[in-house]
Amino acid sequence: MTTAPAGLGELAADLDAGDPLAPVRDRFLLPEGVVYLDGNSLGPLPAAVPPVLTEVVREQWGTGLIRSWNTHAWWDAPVRVGDAVGRLIGAAPGQTVAGDSTSVQLFGALSSAAALRPGRRLLVTDPGHFPTDQYLADSVARLHGLDVRRVRPGDLERFLADEGDGVAVVSYSPVDYRTGELHDMESLTRLTHRAGALALWDLCHAAGALPLHLDELGVDFAVGCGYKFLSGGPGAPAFLYVARRHHAVWETPLHGWNGHADPFALQQRYTPAPGIARARIGTPPMLSLLALEAALSAFDGVDMAQVRAKSLSLTGFFLRCAEDLLADLGFEPVTPADPARRASQVALRHPHAYGLIQSLASRGIVADMRAPDLLRFGVNALYTSHQDLLTAARRLRETAATGAYDPSPHGAAGTVT
Amino acid sequence: MTTAPAGLGELAADLDAGDPLAPVRDRFLLPEGVVYLDGNSLGPLPAAVPPVLTEVVREQWGTGLIRSWNTHAWWDAPVRVGDAVGRLIGAAPGQTVAGDSTSVQLFGALSSAAALRPGRRLLVTDPGHFPTDQYLADSVARLHGLDVRRVRPGDLERFLADEGDGVAVVSYSPVDYRTGELHDMESLTRLTHRAGALALWDLCHAAGALPLHLDELGVDFAVGCGYKFLSGGPGAPAFLYVARRHHAVWETPLHGWNGHADPFALQQRYTPAPGIARARIGTPPMLSLLALEAALSAFDGVDMAQVRAKSLSLTGFFLRCAEDLLADLGFEPVTPADPARRASQVALRHPHAYGLIQSLASRGIVADMRAPDLLRFGVNALYTSHQDLLTAARRLRETAATGAYDPSPHGAAGTVT
Repeated sequence: MTTAPAGLGELAADLDAGDPLAPVRDRFLLPEGVVYLDGNSLGPLPAAVPPVLTEVVREQWGTGLIRSWNTHAWWDAPVRVGDAVGRLIGAAPGQTVAGDSTSVQLFGALSSAAALRPGRRLLVTDPGHFPTDQYLADSVARLHGLDVRRVRPGDLERFLADEGDGVAVVSYSPVDYRTGELHDMESLTRLTHRAGALALWDLCHAAGALPLHLDELGVDFAVGCGYKFLSGGPGAPAFLYVARRHHAVWETPLHGWNGHADPFALQQRYTPAPGIARARIGTPPMLSLLALEAALSAFDGVDMAQVRAKSLSLTGFFLRCAEDLLADLGFEPVTPADPARRASQVALRHPHAYGLIQSLASRGIVADMRAPDLLRFGVNALYTSHQDLLTAARRLRETAATGAYDPSPHGAAGTVT
Repeated sequence: MTTAPAGLGELAADLDAGDPLAPVRDRFLLPEGVVYLDGNSLGPLPAAVPPVLTEVVREQWGTGLIRSWNTHAWWDAPVRVGDAVGRLIGAAPGQTVAGDSTSVQLFGALSSAAALRPGRRLLVTDPGHFPTDQYLADSVARLHGLDVRRVRPGDLERFLADEGDGVAVVSYSPVDYRTGELHDMESLTRLTHRAGALALWDLCHAAGALPLHLDELGVDFAVGCGYKFLSGGPGAPAFLYVARRHHAVWETPLHGWNGHADPFALQQRYTPAPGIARARIGTPPMLSLLALEAALSAFDGVDMAQVRAKSLSLTGFFLRCAEDLLADLGFEPVTPADPARRASQVALRHPHAYGLIQSLASRGIVADMRAPDLLRFGVNALYTSHQDLLTAARRLRETAATGAYDPSPHGAAGTVT
């Protein structure tokens, strides 16, 4: 240890005292006695959600009944909530729709993107990509007679130099969901476009965690979930972004009646709605969708540059805690020390990750693990404090030092990413 | 008029007094002063939902956080809620999953079913089928190089005699969503199987409204929504049924990680979960899904044969009201008088359907219309009374007789089927 715990305590207090986002923490109902570092799996409950949901259930559904599709503008919610997400990801209005799961949105986006590059037979995905992204690349490829290539982002340039003219779509995430490594969206999008391919980004671990600039970077398609850094609730609807320049020609195979140009004419043949509305597909789960909308109000007036600055301060501080308090106990940081390559979580490697995370949870520190040996600590600048992280690091030190945990080599932590 | 309104009033009172399901009405929070006859579009709020949803939001999400995927069995919900739906549709456990929208479920079911009949190039749908069913048949056919044939259920036998050996799937609804006509699932399923094709039923307008016997009839696939007769809330998750005999070979193109055989191993390659669990796809919208689960408790102890008997009593009574109170004002019933051919709604034809429905709504009678000239009155045996229907018929008579309505020939009633 190079610094005494007392020094870290003063540092945490100073950093928290100077935090311009500190008041935003009150927009979340965090349980007493819990340090919550798993908002990268499921965001906590925003204070705005319970009253909105009570009103939606009692008044809008209970009293308004079917009329609320008009009187409470339920019908407009997918695009309205999509636009609210759009403000956080650098998307001008009319390009983002909220609804369905990330998996379903990925299926539509991959199919749509591949169809825009006929004659190109390759879908590129990341072998480190979240499983659903890889499964759907394989499935869409099989349906369309394409092939999948698994290429790490760091190898993309070399790969495209050889095979770029065969690539239809490059489907990546800016964040490695295990290590928290941040890939450079700008350069990867540029490389993709230079090869004549389309860029599809999965923003599950990025939306709400860092500034994104989809329009500015010329991203073609993007998807993401509503339940991690957007704190929209368990299984909150996902979102799909399609750049406006594709709207005239873009097609999705998921032809639901909500996405018809004239849905209430109830015609026999499908005519896609103009713009992003064709991605509405079927009737959305309104309770979950309106909970997400309420949750997004936690971002009102929050500058994403401030979110990024605080997130880096938090992860940097936790890496410092790990160095000072945990290095001698066998914890090895795998999240890059370079801020430019660090998203909004810190992953530590330890052979007893499973037991340590279980033991921490019993002591009020909620984080998660990825088999076989990664402990993941997600931070969210809207509610995480430096003091939270110091508390977590200290308890982890105590737990590891005393050996008070299940030493199973691994385990299926039944949590949802 | 052949019967004085007073006679209808006595009849309504008698029928309601002898209704064994009358106490079930208290399981719904129906607003004061409203007669709700649009539960075939959006079921009303079950009394069980608000307390469950408050607990789910405050305790399970707010306090339990990510841990609730295990501690509150969120992970099991899609199959658990699917089985609860299964009890209402004649499906033994393990064959029904809840989640996604009907449109997405239809895409998966049509794709899956077509793949089980390689070499057969025809998908049969009903030209009177709800639009989404027709759009997705067209879309799936295009993806798989198949052709769609639009064949009315009444013409199926003749069609299959000519072209049956080319048919992969017959995709029908037992209920015409406009007229309320009930098709014979048993004979249509038998005809389909005799031709060597698979039967896919859309139960949106049937589940919760009448007894269904999927296992007994040997139905292959079925889908349906959670928000009509199941009263699961706006856009409540849909369901998918896949008969157990197909589980060993059945495949869906929607390869989400929730449907993987070992989801938390987070493997690169997709291995479908055994049984119906492979249809879980992505992470489901838990608030909407658990609201649906709570809503289904309104069926606890309710015998679907009683539901059917009361539903027929209600629609029969309303047809009688229409004959006595409305026939002389130009209303023509289009729902079959034969109980065996009548589902759980009554449709009346009138050239001013749009204005009449609008005017009725302003007088506390909520029903809906389908362009150009159908007024739809849905009944749900769990909460509709004969008195409700008499009130509706009387107000409709007053409205039509006084001409106090917008006489526009039609209009896009922005309601959701």
